[in-house]
Amino acid sequence: MENEILELIEEKKYTKLRSMLSEMNPADIAQILEEAPKKELPVIFRILQKELAAEVFSYLESDMQQVLIEAFSDAELREVLDELFMDDAVDIIDEMPASVAKRILKQTDAETRKMINKLLAYPDDSAGSIMTTEYIDLKKNMTVSDAFERIRKIGTDTETIYTCYVTDRSRRLIGIVTVKDLLLNSQDTVIDDIMEENIIFANTLDDKEEVAGQFEKYDLMALPVVDKENRLVGIITVDDAIDVIQEEATEDIDKMAAILPSDKTYFKTSVFSTFKARIPWLMLLMLSATFTGAIISSFEEKLTALPALIAFIPMLMGTAGNSGSQSSVTIIRGLSLGDIEFADFFKVLWKELRVALMCSITLAAVNFIKLLLVDHMLLSSFDSKWLIEISVVCLTLAFTVIVSKLFGSALPIVAKKIGFDPAVMASPFITTIVDAISLMIYFGVAMWLL
Amino acid sequence: MENEILELIEEKKYTKLRSMLSEMNPADIAQILEEAPKKELPVIFRILQKELAAEVFSYLESDMQQVLIEAFSDAELREVLDELFMDDAVDIIDEMPASVAKRILKQTDAETRKMINKLLAYPDDSAGSIMTTEYIDLKKNMTVSDAFERIRKIGTDTETIYTCYVTDRSRRLIGIVTVKDLLLNSQDTVIDDIMEENIIFANTLDDKEEVAGQFEKYDLMALPVVDKENRLVGIITVDDAIDVIQEEATEDIDKMAAILPSDKTYFKTSVFSTFKARIPWLMLLMLSATFTGAIISSFEEKLTALPALIAFIPMLMGTAGNSGSQSSVTIIRGLSLGDIEFADFFKVLWKELRVALMCSITLAAVNFIKLLLVDHMLLSSFDSKWLIEISVVCLTLAFTVIVSKLFGSALPIVAKKIGFDPAVMASPFITTIVDAISLMIYFGVAMWLL
Repeated sequence: MENEILELIEEKKYTKLRSMLSEMNPADIAQILEEAPKKELPVIFRILQKELAAEVFSYLESDMQQVLIEAFSDAELREVLDELFMDDAVDIIDEMPASVAKRILKQTDAETRKMINKLLAYPDDSAGSIMTTEYIDLKKNMTVSDAFERIRKIGTDTETIYTCYVTDRSRRLIGIVTVKDLLLNSQDTVIDDIMEENIIFANTLDDKEEVAGQFEKYDLMALPVVDKENRLVGIITVDDAIDVIQEEATEDIDKMAAILPSDKTYFKTSVFSTFKARIPWLMLLMLSATFTGAIISSFEEKLTALPALIAFIPMLMGTAGNSGSQSSVTIIRGLSLGDIEFADFFKVLWKELRVALMCSITLAAVNFIKLLLVDHMLLSSFDSKWLIEISVVCLTLAFTVIVSKLFGSALPIVAKKIGFDPAVMASPFITTIVDAISLMIYFGVAMWLL
Repeated sequence: MENEILELIEEKKYTKLRSMLSEMNPADIAQILEEAPKKELPVIFRILQKELAAEVFSYLESDMQQVLIEAFSDAELREVLDELFMDDAVDIIDEMPASVAKRILKQTDAETRKMINKLLAYPDDSAGSIMTTEYIDLKKNMTVSDAFERIRKIGTDTETIYTCYVTDRSRRLIGIVTVKDLLLNSQDTVIDDIMEENIIFANTLDDKEEVAGQFEKYDLMALPVVDKENRLVGIITVDDAIDVIQEEATEDIDKMAAILPSDKTYFKTSVFSTFKARIPWLMLLMLSATFTGAIISSFEEKLTALPALIAFIPMLMGTAGNSGSQSSVTIIRGLSLGDIEFADFFKVLWKELRVALMCSITLAAVNFIKLLLVDHMLLSSFDSKWLIEISVVCLTLAFTVIVSKLFGSALPIVAKKIGFDPAVMASPFITTIVDAISLMIYFGVAMWLL
C-alpha cells in the first residue's frame, strides 16, 4: 500500500493518487507522506480534499509542516488554519521558526491571535499548554433540547461534544453533563437537574504529567481546565493525555539511560542533536570514575600482592550496580505513576532491606559454591589463602548488594523531595556511587580478613 | 480528606461516612479504602449506594476485591456482578483463586457465563483479553431516530455509546457511526448514508500493545474487535488502552533494569515476589562476569607489571556500558513506539556509527587532557612510560565507545527480528557483552603499544 502510493507520487499519477488517498485515514496518509520527497509535498497536499488535507497536516511532523507552510499562499494557509483545532494550531506554531510563526499569526483574525498568544505563554509542562479552547458550554437553566440545539450549532468546530461544560455568568465552571445523560433524559429536563457538580478538573499551571495521570485514574475522556479564578478556559482531550503519557515514559527511560530527553522521534533527531543529548552524561560519568580509579590506585601495592582479587572487581561492581539500579528504577517508576510518595520513605526502605537481604544471601551463597568449584578447583585461580580470598569476595558481595539496594531506593525519593528529578538519579548516577562504595567495601574486607 | 474518612471508619460513624462518600468519585473512594483495615471493608461497602458500590468495587485492587467477595452473600455478589461491565468482571475473575472464581461464575446466568469463559480464554497479551462485549450495534437501514431509540434502550448498560457499530445479518462489521454524526444529521437520515466504512479495527488475537498503539496513532476513543470471520465480537475503550500503554512502559523499564516484570504495584507485590523478580538476572549477570574475571586473570602477570592500568578498568568498562545502554535503550523504545523497524537496520547502524564517532573522539580527547593534567602531573599515577600508558587508555576508550554503541543498537533490532524481547537485550545484558569486549580491547591495545 505504502509503496504503491509512493510510486504513484513518483510517477505523478495524481488522479489515481487522489482517489486512493481519499479512502484513507489521515494518520496513515501523514505517515506515508513522511517518506515522500519533500518537494512533492505541496502538490500532493493540494490534490487532497480540503478537510482531509487539514487533518493530514495536523498529523505531520513539524519539519514537513514547515515545508508546506512555506509553499502555501496566504489564502491556502488561512484555509488550513481554519480547519485546525486550536491546540493543534498552537503546537504547530510552537515548533516553527520565528519568521514562519509570525506569518501564521498574521493570517489569523485578531481574536484567534490573542487566544493563540495566550496559549503559547503557558509553560511547556503545564496543563495549559496541551488544552484546547473549543468545547461545548451550556447554562444551567437550559433544557436538554436547548443543549442539543447548541451542540448542533457549535459541535462541528469542537474536538469533543460528548462532555458539555456548564458555566455561570462569570464563566466559572459549575457542572458537567455528558451527551449520554442528555440522551437518556427527556427533552424538557433542565440541565441543572442532571448535571454532575462533583467535577474533576485541572488548573492551567498544573503539571501535565499529573493531569495525564488523572485520565488514567478516573477513566476520563476529557478534563476541564480552569484559571486561578475558577473560570473555565479550556479542556484537555484524552488523545493529548495519551501523548503526554508516552512522552513522559520515554523521557524517564531516556534519563535512566543517561540521555538528555528529546521530544523528537529517533530518525527526526539529527546526528549532532543525538550526540549532544548523549555526551554530557557520558563525559560526567567518565570523569567521575576518577574516584574509583583513585581508590584502586591507593590499594595498588596490596593488590599486586593479591592479584587474584583484581579479577573479581568487575563482577563485584557489576552486581552492585545491577542491584542498585533494580531498586532505583522500580522506585522511580513508582514515583512517576503515583504509587510511591515521600511519606512511604521508611516503608520503602524496610521493604528494600528485606528484599536486599534475601538477594544478598542467595547471591553470596551461589557465588561461594561457584568460586569453590569453578575458580578454585577447576581453574586454580587462588593461592594458598584460597578460603580467605573466597570469603572476602562473598562477604563483599553480600554487603554491597544490601548497601546498593538501600542507596538505589532512597536516593530517588530524596531527590524528588528536594526538587530534583528522580529519573536522573537512576542507573548511571547510582552506579557511580555504588561502584565507589563497593570498591571501598572490597578493600576494607580484604584488609580486615587478610 | 483521606484521614478524615479513615477516622470516621475507625469510629464507626457510618451515617456521616455515607453522606461523605456519596459525594466522592469512585476512584478516590477505592484509593482510600485500600488504606482501611480489611475487616471493615464489607461494612463500608454495604453502606454505599448500590451503583456507586459496584463502581468502587471495579477500582479496587484484587486482594481487596477478594476480601469483599468472600464476605458477600450470593445475592450481594449477584448485585455487584450485574452492575459491572463485562471486561471488568472478566479481569476480576482472572485475578481470583479458582474457588472464588467458581463461586462468581455460579452467580451469573448461563449466557453471561458462556461469554465470560470465552473472554477468559483469550491469551493475556491479546486484544480479546481487554475488550468488552457491551456496545451499541445498529443496522444500516435504520434511521438516525431509530439509532437514538436503540441507544436509549441499551445505552445504560454499555461502557461507551459515542461510537456505534453497524453490522450485517451475519454480525460482520460494515461501518461505524458516531453520536456526533447522528446529532449533526436530521432524524430521518439513513445510517447507511452517513456511516464510515473505512474502519480501523483489531482482531481478537492481535497483540494488545500494538492495539494500544492504534489509539495513539489515530486518536481513537474506542476500537472494534472482530474474529477470524470478521464478525464483531467486542470493543476496546480508550481507558483500557491507556492502562495497556502504562503497563507496557513499566514492563519495558523493568526489563531494561534486569527485573522480571510484574503486573502489580510496588506495595502490592510481596517481598518474596519482589525477590523472585530480581534474583534471576542478578544471578545470571553475576555468573556471566566469570568471563570478565577470566580475561583479567589471563592477563594477570602482565597487569602486575603495569599496575597503573588496573585503576582504569572500572572507568573503561563503565563508559563502555553507558555508551552501549544509551544506544540500546533508545532503540528499544523506538521499536516499542513503532518509530523503528527491522527495515531500518542499516539506517540505524549508520546513524549510530556517526554519533559514536563524535562521542568517541570527544571522550578520548577530554580523557587525554584529564589523564595528563590530573593523573600524570597532579597525582603521578603513571611511571616512566606515562605517554604510552595514557595513549593505551584513550585509544581503548575510543574503540570501546564505538563498538559498544554499534552492539547496543544492533542487538535489540536483531533480537526483535528473531522473536526475542528487545527490552531484555537492554542495559544489563549488553553491559556484560560490552564489559568483556572492552577488556579485550584494553589488553589488546596494551600488548600492542607496550
